[in-house]
Amino acid sequence: MDTEIKRILECVRSGSLSVDDALLRLKGAPFVDIGFAKVDLHRTVRQGAAEVIYGAGKTPAQIRSILETMQKNGCDRILITRLSPDAAAALSSVCRITYHESAALAHTGAFPAPGGIGKIVVAAGGTSDLPVAEEAALTAEFYGNRVTRLYDVGVAGLHRLLTYKDDVMNAAVIVAVAGMEGALPSVVGGLADCPVIAVPTSVGYGASFGGLAALLAMLNSCASGVSVVNIDNGFGAGYLASMINHMEVKP
Amino acid sequence: MDTEIKRILECVRSGSLSVDDALLRLKGAPFVDIGFAKVDLHRTVRQGAAEVIYGAGKTPAQIRSILETMQKNGCDRILITRLSPDAAAALSSVCRITYHESAALAHTGAFPAPGGIGKIVVAAGGTSDLPVAEEAALTAEFYGNRVTRLYDVGVAGLHRLLTYKDDVMNAAVIVAVAGMEGALPSVVGGLADCPVIAVPTSVGYGASFGGLAALLAMLNSCASGVSVVNIDNGFGAGYLASMINHMEVKP
Amino acid sequence: MDTEIKRILECVRSGSLSVDDALLRLKGAPFVDIGFAKVDLHRTVRQGAAEVIYGAGKTPAQIRSILETMQKNGCDRILITRLSPDAAAALSSVCRITYHESAALAHTGAFPAPGGIGKIVVAAGGTSDLPVAEEAALTAEFYGNRVTRLYDVGVAGLHRLLTYKDDVMNAAVIVAVAGMEGALPSVVGGLADCPVIAVPTSVGYGASFGGLAALLAMLNSCASGVSVVNIDNGFGAGYLASMINHMEVKP
Amino acid sequence: MDTEIKRILECVRSGSLSVDDALLRLKGAPFVDIGFAKVDLHRTVRQGAAEVIYGAGKTPAQIRSILETMQKNGCDRILITRLSPDAAAALSSVCRITYHESAALAHTGAFPAPGGIGKIVVAAGGTSDLPVAEEAALTAEFYGNRVTRLYDVGVAGLHRLLTYKDDVMNAAVIVAVAGMEGALPSVVGGLADCPVIAVPTSVGYGASFGGLAALLAMLNSCASGVSVVNIDNGFGAGYLASMINHMEVKP
Amino acid sequence: MDTEIKRILECVRSGSLSVDDALLRLKGAPFVDIGFAKVDLHRTVRQGAAEVIYGAGKTPAQIRSILETMQKNGCDRILITRLSPDAAAALSSVCRITYHESAALAHTGAFPAPGGIGKIVVAAGGTSDLPVAEEAALTAEFYGNRVTRLYDVGVAGLHRLLTYKDDVMNAAVIVAVAGMEGALPSVVGGLADCPVIAVPTSVGYGASFGGLAALLAMLNSCASGVSVVNIDNGFGAGYLASMINHMEVKP
Amino acid sequence: MDTEIKRILECVRSGSLSVDDALLRLKGAPFVDIGFAKVDLHRTVRQGAAEVIYGAGKTPAQIRSILETMQKNGCDRILITRLSPDAAAALSSVCRITYHESAALAHTGAFPAPGGIGKIVVAAGGTSDLPVAEEAALTAEFYGNRVTRLYDVGVAGLHRLLTYKDDVMNAAVIVAVAGMEGALPSVVGGLADCPVIAVPTSVGYGASFGGLAALLAMLNSCASGVSVVNIDNGFGAGYLASMINHMEVKP
Amino acid sequence: MDTEIKRILECVRSGSLSVDDALLRLKGAPFVDIGFAKVDLHRTVRQGAAEVIYGAGKTPAQIRSILETMQKNGCDRILITRLSPDAAAALSSVCRITYHESAALAHTGAFPAPGGIGKIVVAAGGTSDLPVAEEAALTAEFYGNRVTRLYDVGVAGLHRLLTYKDDVMNAAVIVAVAGMEGALPSVVGGLADCPVIAVPTSVGYGASFGGLAALLAMLNSCASGVSVVNIDNGFGAGYLASMINHMEVKP
Amino acid sequence: MDTEIKRILECVRSGSLSVDDALLRLKGAPFVDIGFAKVDLHRTVRQGAAEVIYGAGKTPAQIRSILETMQKNGCDRILITRLSPDAAAALSSVCRITYHESAALAHTGAFPAPGGIGKIVVAAGGTSDLPVAEEAALTAEFYGNRVTRLYDVGVAGLHRLLTYKDDVMNAAVIVAVAGMEGALPSVVGGLADCPVIAVPTSVGYGASFGGLAALLAMLNSCASGVSVVNIDNGFGAGYLASMINHMEVKP
Repeated sequence: MDTEIKRILECVRSGSLSVDDALLRLKGAPFVDIGFAKVDLHRTVRQGAAEVIYGAGKTPAQIRSILETMQKNGCDRILITRLSPDAAAALSSVCRITYHESAALAHTGAFPAPGGIGKIVVAAGGTSDLPVAEEAALTAEFYGNRVTRLYDVGVAGLHRLLTYKDDVMNAAVIVAVAGMEGALPSVVGGLADCPVIAVPTSVGYGASFGGLAALLAMLNSCASGVSVVNIDNGFGAGYLASMINHMEVKP
Repeated sequence: MDTEIKRILECVRSGSLSVDDALLRLKGAPFVDIGFAKVDLHRTVRQGAAEVIYGAGKTPAQIRSILETMQKNGCDRILITRLSPDAAAALSSVCRITYHESAALAHTGAFPAPGGIGKIVVAAGGTSDLPVAEEAALTAEFYGNRVTRLYDVGVAGLHRLLTYKDDVMNAAVIVAVAGMEGALPSVVGGLADCPVIAVPTSVGYGASFGGLAALLAMLNSCASGVSVVNIDNGFGAGYLASMINHMEVKP
Repeated sequence: MDTEIKRILECVRSGSLSVDDALLRLKGAPFVDIGFAKVDLHRTVRQGAAEVIYGAGKTPAQIRSILETMQKNGCDRILITRLSPDAAAALSSVCRITYHESAALAHTGAFPAPGGIGKIVVAAGGTSDLPVAEEAALTAEFYGNRVTRLYDVGVAGLHRLLTYKDDVMNAAVIVAVAGMEGALPSVVGGLADCPVIAVPTSVGYGASFGGLAALLAMLNSCASGVSVVNIDNGFGAGYLASMINHMEVKP
Repeated sequence: MDTEIKRILECVRSGSLSVDDALLRLKGAPFVDIGFAKVDLHRTVRQGAAEVIYGAGKTPAQIRSILETMQKNGCDRILITRLSPDAAAALSSVCRITYHESAALAHTGAFPAPGGIGKIVVAAGGTSDLPVAEEAALTAEFYGNRVTRLYDVGVAGLHRLLTYKDDVMNAAVIVAVAGMEGALPSVVGGLADCPVIAVPTSVGYGASFGGLAALLAMLNSCASGVSVVNIDNGFGAGYLASMINHMEVKP
Repeated sequence: MDTEIKRILECVRSGSLSVDDALLRLKGAPFVDIGFAKVDLHRTVRQGAAEVIYGAGKTPAQIRSILETMQKNGCDRILITRLSPDAAAALSSVCRITYHESAALAHTGAFPAPGGIGKIVVAAGGTSDLPVAEEAALTAEFYGNRVTRLYDVGVAGLHRLLTYKDDVMNAAVIVAVAGMEGALPSVVGGLADCPVIAVPTSVGYGASFGGLAALLAMLNSCASGVSVVNIDNGFGAGYLASMINHMEVKP
Repeated sequence: MDTEIKRILECVRSGSLSVDDALLRLKGAPFVDIGFAKVDLHRTVRQGAAEVIYGAGKTPAQIRSILETMQKNGCDRILITRLSPDAAAALSSVCRITYHESAALAHTGAFPAPGGIGKIVVAAGGTSDLPVAEEAALTAEFYGNRVTRLYDVGVAGLHRLLTYKDDVMNAAVIVAVAGMEGALPSVVGGLADCPVIAVPTSVGYGASFGGLAALLAMLNSCASGVSVVNIDNGFGAGYLASMINHMEVKP
Repeated sequence: MDTEIKRILECVRSGSLSVDDALLRLKGAPFVDIGFAKVDLHRTVRQGAAEVIYGAGKTPAQIRSILETMQKNGCDRILITRLSPDAAAALSSVCRITYHESAALAHTGAFPAPGGIGKIVVAAGGTSDLPVAEEAALTAEFYGNRVTRLYDVGVAGLHRLLTYKDDVMNAAVIVAVAGMEGALPSVVGGLADCPVIAVPTSVGYGASFGGLAALLAMLNSCASGVSVVNIDNGFGAGYLASMINHMEVKP
Repeated sequence: MDTEIKRILECVRSGSLSVDDALLRLKGAPFVDIGFAKVDLHRTVRQGAAEVIYGAGKTPAQIRSILETMQKNGCDRILITRLSPDAAAALSSVCRITYHESAALAHTGAFPAPGGIGKIVVAAGGTSDLPVAEEAALTAEFYGNRVTRLYDVGVAGLHRLLTYKDDVMNAAVIVAVAGMEGALPSVVGGLADCPVIAVPTSVGYGASFGGLAALLAMLNSCASGVSVVNIDNGFGAGYLASMINHMEVKP
């Protein structure tokens, strides 16, 4: 950003930019105001990267409007999370999206060829955790990562997890998804030597208190290298996993 | 109890017991009122078994007074839990007790020869969980059980626990003690085929909230056969483990 | 497990098993991967015992698929918990199950002849606690136990419970189910000399906070021999009660 | 109050009271402002009754100053609650008080002859609940009630409570004090036909969460006629019990 | 109860009662077991008083069955709380009940002539608190009390409450119902010299957390003579108010 | 109020007002009792100002009844909050209201010409916070304020907020509305030198716990000049903002 | 800030400022980095106003160091909050401060002549709330406001508050400080027509949960014009009250 | 691990390893049992890496014993966290450690030359957060990373953070440490394009509830790429930051 400021200042000195225009530019930010939302184009403008729309709490009309604004501004790879089947149907009648109902997630464009440092393992404790796990896995794939899915490997049946110990030990990043007692990230974190992103889910009943039990367990994990995202936040975990898997030397 | 009532009634019918005396007996209960406490002698009277004094919140003088009342009434095997070193010192100057400082636990008399169905395994997640684990282990020994201690076998270093898989799989009952994320009972419960008594400890900081995280995790355990006692309640776990380990066919 | 490892190693030494096959076997675990689930056959393989499907959060199609996988692998005694009437109807059109609507529980096969050390008493505080109590009672019966049901014996009407004091005092194991103030296990635990498994229920309103009040009360029980399972976890209590009632001397 | 207003207005009409003086009187309230406190003399002025000083969070100097203000204004029966031994010592060097260390409670003057409808029973679950129970019992005695103390009658040893069933069933009002699982008021409330004031105490550890478990249990009591005061609020319970025990027909 | 035991014992001595029959009687309790419930007839048998059915969580068929059992055993004054309009309709097609939809409360028989020490004031903070307030008021009327209703007198508009200060100051007992900040009992308790039963309601949003805010406020009330029942427990408050309003000297 | 009392007293002295009438007047308060509600006319009577009806938990019939009572008593500017579209439709068939569905808010009469000290800025973190933000903005406009809306300026995209730094720095009062992490008021409060009213919203999922996370964050704000209203309380914030924006020197 | 940017840009165009220097200035912010802290001089530089040091969690040496940095940069009116007597003593040995022990608050320089729109009333519920109330009152005085203190006016003794109704009704801003049930702001807010800043205190015991009860009550206040600051945050309330009391028309 | 198993199996086939020895090896794990702890040497054995001792809840004697066991087994780079000054003094009398009191952290050996992908920025909100921030920073340095410290850059004074925007935008990984409202990670996460590890601290008072407010805020962060560790867990954040900064392509 600094270099941009410097460039603007040099334009001012050279006279090629008026003071008022410079002021405008210095304040200009890459978003489009469409009333109910300020559509961010940061990633597109700066990096040619994909944009994300968080679908929950938005009407199909609002989502469509944001989508169209993004597309008009040159963004053709867009991820939409927490999109209900109904909203997806309404949306797909007006624009081309691929919808994954299992994860309530849609996207425009195709998945890129996978890259990055290595494989991302998405491990899930039980069958009921799949929607969250799939949100993480598909997000990671959307951002160009190879993903290995290890589902139904809860710690109460350790042999199932240990069967896939190689996958766990060779992963570049692991997303560990679990509800109930939320112990999976601790066990996985003890086996692996890579960053583990723990995702508590709201799966459970009674004293799970909507995922609170799993959340607290994960925050208290004894295993090193474990960090936690919000309950049911599969997208956040998949996005961060991709970010870590694409780490590059900064000069 | 019914047979006792029946016996009293028959004495009344035969005239060997007056109505008033019978009334008294029917209402008589095996405890001694010493003002600040009603010293229970239930176990002694009915079963010749040991009595327990919960030491927390009682002055050394009160504990001594209860102890002496028990001893006067023929009870010579008494367990005292949550006894501070100072209170233990004050107590040992007036009567013979054996004090285990690591568990803040004292007892009169010797440990009986161990019996029961099999071995009780007391497993603990970390070094800081030892006081609670020892309270459980010593309680079980006081009640006549063989105890195998597996300490510092937290799930974040699974190989340590798996090294002792035989002990776990051959236990009659397991007491699993853990603070932090409280995942040990789930993993142990998945490996074993016996009752697992989970003891959350207040070990931890931050989001452990005084053992709440471990408690919730244990209550949400996916493993079958797991039940939970109060945070730091080593005595309760050891007592219940002994009770289960001494199960006998009731006619 | 060790003996199995030893046997495999001896096969390797004798040459009857190649290194790669041995590796496979050492890692092979008795489960079947059907995509969304890894169907566990542990109990069947090792013990000829019954398997359990936790029905909540699974579609009828998923449950059916797991059921068929189990049956194909020789397991003919299967318990399905938390099965809604609709899912039960869908399931019973394709396979033979017995459905208990009061407990939202189904099973294949018949109940075995009851055995074990003695009787399991399932006591419940109020009429609204019945679904949870029945889940516990039917689970215990499914695993081969004689069950005595004591329903609507809440502590605020003590005479109702005391009428059945004989049942309480002669039980091998007691499952005490209660919502609201959750005091039943404490009173029952004081009367009985056997393990008491406390099940808090979400029955209540206002400050019951979905069963939290009952849960905390049970965890704080002054009675010895009481342990607690998750709110509404009738299955867990029934399973553990059966496990304790079938304790046998381990060599 | 209305009659007083009417009288003042009639004085104004008759000219025996100026408008300004009437205004003053209408606004005049029976308290004395001593800077850090507005000492209330309501009870003294209206009823010749006793006043109360809540000692916690006040310095001995502040307590003394309030006490002296009360005494100067004709109040000679004063109760001081939550008074530490040190503060009591400081206070007794300058004025005559009777101090009950067990309840951290002091008073000036003697206890009046007991009266009221009947006896107040103060029942307490365990030895550690005594300070709170004594605060309730002494408060009731200070306000002129006969008090029966039933201590150490926790529900986990039901026979101890049942021994005193007559006291419970004949009480005019019952104060039931308990920490831990807080079940005493439910059981007592089921036995008795009189108002039961439940006092949760902070006695306990782990999941008692400073008395929260007992508080919630008491609020969820199934027994009719039970109401609850704050954790450790022995004074409040004793005061309310006395108020109920002195109910009189209002015209 | 003791006198009954004594009488039975004397019958045994005189031979007019066999030992077994006496045993039966000693254990006989006034309830009828109808499977899913043990219908209590305590009040009817002992006092000719009215019985109560807590309607929530019971089917119309279950309620009807309990009702009929009570009626068959001579109880003709029955109160049914938490009865939905649908359940009330189903019930009224088979037996005569009076239904108050505003309070979701029904009863058989007529209200008795009001009696007791004085008037019961039921004060409510806002319009939304009316269902709970009416449950308290109708319960009190069902048990034979004169009730004064003061609705919509929340403390944020103090003049409304002060307009009815006479009612407040002349009440025998006050039931103070409030959601939101729950301050009404404190203000009312400061004005009145009689017992105040505080009923928090779940009325509110956001940080009211389902009535928790009001509940905590009421438990912390600075006013003397205030005690609290469960959130939305209008019945409990009305019942207790009636109990206090009918206090009579016990010999 | 005092002057009114003085005037009444002088009328009594002069004989132009009887004692009884004076008593009536002294007790007379500006509200109308319509049974289920005491309709307050305080603002109208004292200030000719607008009245407010809190629509939640009231039936359309009740709202209409209150509205008509207000109108009959000369109040023609009435705000109705938390009014569902259905209730609005029912209401608009019988009287003239303007309904803003986005904020679930209606009013009679037109918005007054805006006045006050300066502009009120209503800033909102995300699109889902709009209903609450609009409730605040429309309330402020109804009370005669100029309002600048800054929506979708959450702190995770700081450039969007900084683009409008001038509006923030020149505001007279700021209402900062945010769910999720609730950080907007802290950042806004650091930029501005005016009072900031923070409104947490229930927007979010998982560990937002219905707005608790945002609420706690706002209460802990390091920025000076920030205060907080209840979760989703847009009206309260708009009302207070208007009150501050219309501050005038009091003599 | 914009005008400053504009001025810098004009200097660049005119050549009186190099591009690099301009860059520096644009990034230069009015704080001084002293290692462990970045001492803010914002208020001094922009407004000649007073600065604040939050004393809690800082050593006397750190506070002194920050103080000296401020003074060196021309700031001679500094407020230090949460300063323990020991830290105050250590500080006063090296520089001139005025220390108010009752509020744990110190300041350099004298209080300015009071100004603003009107009077700030600081009302407190009980004697124990005084430290927080004094923090608010002294802060307001430090910032140039007339303050009226109304202490010990809790709502359970309404006549004490009503005696000062004139002060309440004539206030420009009110700070209402209360622990326990936290009802004072609601009652005060109903009486007054000005902004009320509610300050919950941690005064209380048991179910006050460190001020949580008061906090929740205040957030749920039915009175309009009430907003809330953190528990015990007297400074925040006093600062905001001053800010509101000094509102001026912004062009 | 697999390759090791394979190698062992091949030794068995070739006869160079007996079946029993192989069994032993297969079960052998790289830890040393010293009674109260099982000292893990995993990292040393597998990677020549450094080991960590969590000092809290361990006596100096226990720490020393673990340290010596590690050193005896060839580990010369050891980190000790949560070490009190007293324990550090006791330890340094018997072995060479470097102690950083500001972070309560010690280590043996020197810091290695920094490496990895780029710089790790440790940003902290306030002066009181320094101990936690330093724990993170020193941990990162101990594991071979260049660390940039940005302290006292809380969001309520945004200009301080923005001054260091370059550091933020050029970081490889950011550790964002904050108490109170915990907003720093959201703002930092919006500015940066790298992983942000959020560390809530227990700094604050009142409604910060020991760091809960900051924790919840961070879990709800709208910024992508943010994950959270336990309250005050500086070590965990520093360790994970190092792990991410040393990501390397896995084959």
